[in-house]
Amino acid sequence: MNTNIKLSLPVVCFVWQLSMIILFGVFVRYNEESDTHWVDYRKENNITSDIENDYYFRYPSFQDVHVMIFVGFGFLMTFLKRYSFGAVGFNFLVAAFGIQWALLMQGWFHSLDYTDGKIKIGIENLINADFCVAGCLIAYGAVLGKVSPVQLLVMTLFGVTLFAVEEYIILNVLHAKDAGGSMVIHTFGAYYGLSISWVLYRPNLDKSKHLNGSVYHSDVFAMIGTLFLWMFWPSFNSAIADHGDGQHRAAINTYLALASTVLTTVAMSSLFEKTGKLDMVHIQNSTLAGGVAVGTAAEFMLSPYGSLIVGFFCGIISTLGYIYFSPFLEEKLKIQDTCGIHNLHAMPGVIGGIVGAISAAAATNTVYGDLGLENTFDFTGPFAKRVPTIQGGYQAAGLCVALCFGIGGGIFVGLVLKLPIWGDPADENCFDDEIYWEVPEDEESVPPILAYNNHMIPNKHADM
Amino acid sequence: MNTNIKLSLPVVCFVWQLSMIILFGVFVRYNEESDTHWVDYRKENNITSDIENDYYFRYPSFQDVHVMIFVGFGFLMTFLKRYSFGAVGFNFLVAAFGIQWALLMQGWFHSLDYTDGKIKIGIENLINADFCVAGCLIAYGAVLGKVSPVQLLVMTLFGVTLFAVEEYIILNVLHAKDAGGSMVIHTFGAYYGLSISWVLYRPNLDKSKHLNGSVYHSDVFAMIGTLFLWMFWPSFNSAIADHGDGQHRAAINTYLALASTVLTTVAMSSLFEKTGKLDMVHIQNSTLAGGVAVGTAAEFMLSPYGSLIVGFFCGIISTLGYIYFSPFLEEKLKIQDTCGIHNLHAMPGVIGGIVGAISAAAATNTVYGDLGLENTFDFTGPFAKRVPTIQGGYQAAGLCVALCFGIGGGIFVGLVLKLPIWGDPADENCFDDEIYWEVPEDEESVPPILAYNNHMIPNKHADM
Amino acid sequence: MNTNIKLSLPVVCFVWQLSMIILFGVFVRYNEESDTHWVDYRKENNITSDIENDYYFRYPSFQDVHVMIFVGFGFLMTFLKRYSFGAVGFNFLVAAFGIQWALLMQGWFHSLDYTDGKIKIGIENLINADFCVAGCLIAYGAVLGKVSPVQLLVMTLFGVTLFAVEEYIILNVLHAKDAGGSMVIHTFGAYYGLSISWVLYRPNLDKSKHLNGSVYHSDVFAMIGTLFLWMFWPSFNSAIADHGDGQHRAAINTYLALASTVLTTVAMSSLFEKTGKLDMVHIQNSTLAGGVAVGTAAEFMLSPYGSLIVGFFCGIISTLGYIYFSPFLEEKLKIQDTCGIHNLHAMPGVIGGIVGAISAAAATNTVYGDLGLENTFDFTGPFAKRVPTIQGGYQAAGLCVALCFGIGGGIFVGLVLKLPIWGDPADENCFDDEIYWEVPEDEESVPPILAYNNHMIPNKHADM
Repeated sequence: MNTNIKLSLPVVCFVWQLSMIILFGVFVRYNEESDTHWVDYRKENNITSDIENDYYFRYPSFQDVHVMIFVGFGFLMTFLKRYSFGAVGFNFLVAAFGIQWALLMQGWFHSLDYTDGKIKIGIENLINADFCVAGCLIAYGAVLGKVSPVQLLVMTLFGVTLFAVEEYIILNVLHAKDAGGSMVIHTFGAYYGLSISWVLYRPNLDKSKHLNGSVYHSDVFAMIGTLFLWMFWPSFNSAIADHGDGQHRAAINTYLALASTVLTTVAMSSLFEKTGKLDMVHIQNSTLAGGVAVGTAAEFMLSPYGSLIVGFFCGIISTLGYIYFSPFLEEKLKIQDTCGIHNLHAMPGVIGGIVGAISAAAATNTVYGDLGLENTFDFTGPFAKRVPTIQGGYQAAGLCVALCFGIGGGIFVGLVLKLPIWGDPADENCFDDEIYWEVPEDEESVPPILAYNNHMIPNKHADM
Repeated sequence: MNTNIKLSLPVVCFVWQLSMIILFGVFVRYNEESDTHWVDYRKENNITSDIENDYYFRYPSFQDVHVMIFVGFGFLMTFLKRYSFGAVGFNFLVAAFGIQWALLMQGWFHSLDYTDGKIKIGIENLINADFCVAGCLIAYGAVLGKVSPVQLLVMTLFGVTLFAVEEYIILNVLHAKDAGGSMVIHTFGAYYGLSISWVLYRPNLDKSKHLNGSVYHSDVFAMIGTLFLWMFWPSFNSAIADHGDGQHRAAINTYLALASTVLTTVAMSSLFEKTGKLDMVHIQNSTLAGGVAVGTAAEFMLSPYGSLIVGFFCGIISTLGYIYFSPFLEEKLKIQDTCGIHNLHAMPGVIGGIVGAISAAAATNTVYGDLGLENTFDFTGPFAKRVPTIQGGYQAAGLCVALCFGIGGGIFVGLVLKLPIWGDPADENCFDDEIYWEVPEDEESVPPILAYNNHMIPNKHADM
Repeated sequence: MNTNIKLSLPVVCFVWQLSMIILFGVFVRYNEESDTHWVDYRKENNITSDIENDYYFRYPSFQDVHVMIFVGFGFLMTFLKRYSFGAVGFNFLVAAFGIQWALLMQGWFHSLDYTDGKIKIGIENLINADFCVAGCLIAYGAVLGKVSPVQLLVMTLFGVTLFAVEEYIILNVLHAKDAGGSMVIHTFGAYYGLSISWVLYRPNLDKSKHLNGSVYHSDVFAMIGTLFLWMFWPSFNSAIADHGDGQHRAAINTYLALASTVLTTVAMSSLFEKTGKLDMVHIQNSTLAGGVAVGTAAEFMLSPYGSLIVGFFCGIISTLGYIYFSPFLEEKLKIQDTCGIHNLHAMPGVIGGIVGAISAAAATNTVYGDLGLENTFDFTGPFAKRVPTIQGGYQAAGLCVALCFGIGGGIFVGLVLKLPIWGDPADENCFDDEIYWEVPEDEESVPPILAYNNHMIPNKHADM
């Protein structure tokens, strides 16, 4: 197999980046809050202070989300002993491309100013672009170590496109709510990745089995990713929630769900290992499941104990997934899921969609208040007559849309990626940075007799 | 000794998490700023904008504090060569449990709505829960590597309970101020941990001496913890300070105290090492002492040079503590303090309490302004007649309460933890992740002859 | 050469820290927003809410900038296999000293209250102090591994002083705008460091060539620095921009420029390596060039596609710099630039100055609005009659000032640092932590026969 990407990678990067510039030139402008005309806008609309600019409501959350995308996802995948460059580096590449394409795709659907045909962007668009890319990075987790960077860029191009469409259908057409993206981001992203991995099934992947695991320090690096995802997840689920109580409540619910998940993950990990020892794979991943599952309902009056309950079950289910379901998925369904995204994103995402549907359907004027109910579910304009029970049905429909787009889109893109033109690694070279990166010369890359001799030389540092 | 925690760890996690769910179900609800009724509350109280929601005053600081708790404390303890999983993993477990229990304990004391008997939570409660857990994580530093995760959970259960009571006495009964928790968090937490470590003294701990130290990369990992603690400490000390100038001033004071500490720490480290070389232990820990010591007075008019002076002396004292006092503590007082929390938290915490008492007693209307004095010290309601000198006395009393709760509580909990039922490691297995974690197979775990042969095989990566 | 810093380092640290305390005592006070009199100030000035305190406009950005300074710059330099302690530790020391000296120097020029002769500080001063230190840390990149900590402190003392003067000339005298500091911070800092490195040229540096490179894990550590710089750069460029649309726009422009840079960096890295593989040096550094280059114009109406274009070219130029220009610089111009700051800061900084001049000169009332133009360029007071084309000229003049101060100041300071009193390492000891740090004993520091034998002992962990 030809893993040479000398031509294809630069060409794809240049052509796509040039296209972005042209499309941004034609379509993208600042919105009224990031344009110098804000000063006039403020006066005309009697906005008393600059602090009312949406920037100040959302910027702290935006930066937290940004950290989750680049450090969170990137470092979570560094657990492989010899694929840390690919994990953090390709994550960086894919996300940097994806956010640009997402600004355009989501802009056309959500932020098009029909008076001049321009997409008007502000801080909320940046957050949504990061969100959109999260879906593609989740998918990357399933194929980590088995695809070329060019394939990842293709996956992202299609992934962002599909995302923007399903998001439009779920949020605008169905008018479902999904503040933290359990359906729109996690369910879609995970099934998108799993379907691609299914199409790209490698029967002889055990040729690189010796590299498909961690070493001590790579597991510590991965914990950087885990913790930044875990800590900033309240910002993720609250970033585009309603101003005021909406953001406030979403942060509280997520904080609690995640805390609960940690305890049940530890319990399950210890319970199901032969000697009661803990497995780093579970701690790195399943502890995050509660954040995924509370995404849709984060903005709702789920109540603090409701959040704890969601987190409780997700820790259990996700850890069981790593122990029992991942092997089943690989052996029976022929889905090789490097990072176990089925356990971290797919199942918790679906649970999140269901929790969202049920809690929406159960919403009452007593609990929410008349105004609160209207605000939380945006029962205004064309949706003024919708009631909670109906909303619950639309939430469930939204979940189905996310599933269909994920699975269908993934199969299609998987077939595209099966073409023998993308420079993907041979089975024996999977999970190995040597294929796509200049790796510094450590002892292991020198001839054996030298490696031995190196140990004879004091102060030989490359050995560390 | 039986280190098998297969039964006890899962049982404790499940039972406690279920208890949390039940207690949250009975007691915990959203407060008026995180409830959907906020929209009505705003109108009734003529609040002009959603940006007045306390969420926007405190959320950025909250997230910084959250990073300190999980990445800061967690990675600071990864310095041990072979206990990084335990450091960052058990820190994660303990904190995730502790914040839930703290929301309840602190809620009963501070946020109980007597009209309906419910605890009403918002962003400030989340910060306080993180603060409360910080006390327990400080204590973890003293016993790092020598206790089982079940013991840590028991330590946290009692620690949070004791914390909530001493906090209530100090802040509400004595009406002492302690924005950054020099007394309430650091003094209490440190003496709590040191007392536990005293009761759990291991005379034969040198059996695992070879693991009680760092390697090159584990010291770099620990610097991640150090720096995130150092950088975000201004947020820690200002997180629950008064809106406006209170938070602003607390951040400035902390920023300055910490900067000053770094220079004197470096100076002392170089001065007292034989060859003038720097010791990573000091850089990782003593550089933080200024943040601890400026905690109580952070909100006061300590003035910028005052903050520098506090930091100046704390860098000196803390580094001297590592050089002279830690060995004395271990040999003479039989207190084995793995992370040296006596130097980082105990002494600076007591200094912080004293600085707070003095600067409170010295407060004048000229410096503070009439309104400013009243606001800063909350001389309102039942405390309307209190004057600065009296306040200084109550501050000192607060410090004594923190010391008593720390030492007394620590001895009691130490005795509980001495029971032979908690699965703590044998002396020769301390500081070793192998006891509680599935550790990936690096070269050192394979038989010697294989390890040697591995070096003969090019591209053998686990070796790294 | 005498690398003993046992006397000089402690003396310098103590004397300078004591001087800081005295100078702060004489000069530095809280400003009206961080003083307890804020409560009176609010009432007198009809400020309706505490949220109008500048603290809430800038604190989230401040903390992000703080992370860039300490973790970003610190970890970016950990890429060397055996100089990670020096990278992150000396960065810490230098920055902690620099921010104090910067508060004074910048305070005298910008925040002096002439009524009482005091410098009044608030959150914006803290950000500016961090900015000022950034210039010195950039310079550190050029001399990394080749100077002693005492030399670094001297470099910082002079660097901050020069910075404050050039900043005053550029921002106040010339009234040039430079929100993100392309000129003031990056151009100045980079040429300051390069000039010092030129004066300190070491013809026999290849004696320590074996240590002037990375190992696998040190490259992963460096990515922590890269990513935190990359992610928080929007906060850097917007931290001191105008409230409202200014900060909002600066963040958007930076976000986009950086995304674009990643793609062209990857493209160039792959294109110019023999086998199409990616080089970590480029990914770690050149991906940041867009953030540098968009600094000056971040606040302007550069428009989203303009930002993408800036990023596009900077990724190309910076990567080419690493491939062709750095070797040329070292061989022909005798400038040894350890971190390649010429490619990451110098060239992109100059580009940023030029982009700023052009976009200022091209500003029109149509694009900005009358009020917007006045606000963005502060065409008020003595500069009320200035027009965009003239402003463009002053911007260009500002760039020249930054260059002159950087080069002139660097040569002067380089000569000072050439004095044989600073304890700098011998050529064969460059890039080695052993000189200034107590390094934990790993296998490589024990005698060869022992090192060999260690591999014979199972469970020998120090080996990792």
